[in-house]
Amino acid sequence: MTVDRALLTEITFHVRFAETDQMGIVHHSVYPIYFEEGRSAFSREHGVPYSSLEQMGYSLALSELNIRYLSPARYDEVIKVRTWIDRLLSRGIDFQYEVLRAASDELLVTGQSKQICVNRQGQVRRLPEAWIAPLKRKAGIE
Amino acid sequence: MTVDRALLTEITFHVRFAETDQMGIVHHSVYPIYFEEGRSAFSREHGVPYSSLEQMGYSLALSELNIRYLSPARYDEVIKVRTWIDRLLSRGIDFQYEVLRAASDELLVTGQSKQICVNRQGQVRRLPEAWIAPLKRKAGIE
Amino acid sequence: MTVDRALLTEITFHVRFAETDQMGIVHHSVYPIYFEEGRSAFSREHGVPYSSLEQMGYSLALSELNIRYLSPARYDEVIKVRTWIDRLLSRGIDFQYEVLRAASDELLVTGQSKQICVNRQGQVRRLPEAWIAPLKRKAGIE
Amino acid sequence: MTVDRALLTEITFHVRFAETDQMGIVHHSVYPIYFEEGRSAFSREHGVPYSSLEQMGYSLALSELNIRYLSPARYDEVIKVRTWIDRLLSRGIDFQYEVLRAASDELLVTGQSKQICVNRQGQVRRLPEAWIAPLKRKAGIE
Repeated sequence: MTVDRALLTEITFHVRFAETDQMGIVHHSVYPIYFEEGRSAFSREHGVPYSSLEQMGYSLALSELNIRYLSPARYDEVIKVRTWIDRLLSRGIDFQYEVLRAASDELLVTGQSKQICVNRQGQVRRLPEAWIAPLKRKAGIE
Repeated sequence: MTVDRALLTEITFHVRFAETDQMGIVHHSVYPIYFEEGRSAFSREHGVPYSSLEQMGYSLALSELNIRYLSPARYDEVIKVRTWIDRLLSRGIDFQYEVLRAASDELLVTGQSKQICVNRQGQVRRLPEAWIAPLKRKAGIE
Repeated sequence: MTVDRALLTEITFHVRFAETDQMGIVHHSVYPIYFEEGRSAFSREHGVPYSSLEQMGYSLALSELNIRYLSPARYDEVIKVRTWIDRLLSRGIDFQYEVLRAASDELLVTGQSKQICVNRQGQVRRLPEAWIAPLKRKAGIE
Repeated sequence: MTVDRALLTEITFHVRFAETDQMGIVHHSVYPIYFEEGRSAFSREHGVPYSSLEQMGYSLALSELNIRYLSPARYDEVIKVRTWIDRLLSRGIDFQYEVLRAASDELLVTGQSKQICVNRQGQVRRLPEAWIAPLKRKAGIE
């Protein structure tokens, strides 16, 4: 089911020095970590903290990741990460992302990732209702 | 121009402990670094070392990255990374990757990335002939 | 010259998922990055941003790093990093750090690092007066 | 008990591009990971693989880390890491490290780390005899 983009979380933070490479820009492998930070913030903000899913014995395993790099970010810049749900499925969640330069709102990177719910044995499972319910309510899904 | 998959480089190495996360598996943000290792080895092996491209004043900037995660890798396992050129363009290179468990040849992750040639000012440029010539010869491209 | 510990910067942030390892705790190699974040925040806050030192053609190269690990941090916890100058030298700065669990102020990690000022050729140089002056004024050093 | 430095493991590998920072050198937070790679190789080579310690329900938790940075490493250089045991204790191991440029044997970084044996609850425990015995035999310790 497609969820309204209004259900969106924005975070801002400074680029870390260690995230740069010898091209003088943020290394491309850092953006999956920015996206993950976006998901963590999204889950806290919308009442479905990822840490509580883990306490219930489940994880969201990444199955797919797609990134487009438009413009580089640099050390000490303030970066904005927008995270929203593209699709909420019974056994997983698809997220989308935009990374922007906070000062100008210039779009730097876009991405999407697919996550599937697995138990501690790595078997695919339905997202536990107790965890996902607050999000469904916000999204107007019964 | 499409390049024969025969022009392929394989490397093997152990998974590092620091590459694992609290799920007990290699974190998904590590695979772009494995791919990059694949490109480095590919470029050395085929007579077009990436470090020499940089000495000529050019870089290959990532413009797109797509990854599919099939099965997790774990600490201390020996991993095999296969890297080959999907398309060789005048201003860039598209690479493809397979990451396998070396012991069983089980396929763990597949990926592709697009790189574009930029100069030190970040402007898109043709791949310098002096750098790319050995690869073209191997690939049978005039 | 020894600088008053009052000249201290505190930052707080969430532990990132990617920073954990398969022991379920923040990997020990992450704390040097937390320290660096502390230095970045310290330099911004005290009017001597590190990025402006780099624009003047200088860097602070780490020459020594010592860390003691007392207790582990975990995913999604809020962490506090305290950073202060231990010694301000003509050609370098010694920093000290404390990492605490923000909720309880439990001390998790302590550290110190020595930085030396180098130019773009990697040669040791005096810290440029134009950069360090605001810090000296705050510290009451003529 | 002090162990002979002859019980030493050397590994060599290429510096990864992602390990560089905007100073054009390997970021200082990477060396703890090189040291860890040294410990992993040491433990495999001497018949006490770290993964088997973990299977017995124990981990080696880092309690202290000290690093001196003498000279920088750069992308694609071949690096040599020497790892040896400084002290073998009933509840822990102290390791020492040297990182060298393989081409010239120039010493780049030295370090030491202290590890303590903990069980899955994080309690300090004796190193299990079944794991450490092969190492003690090699070291001539009864």
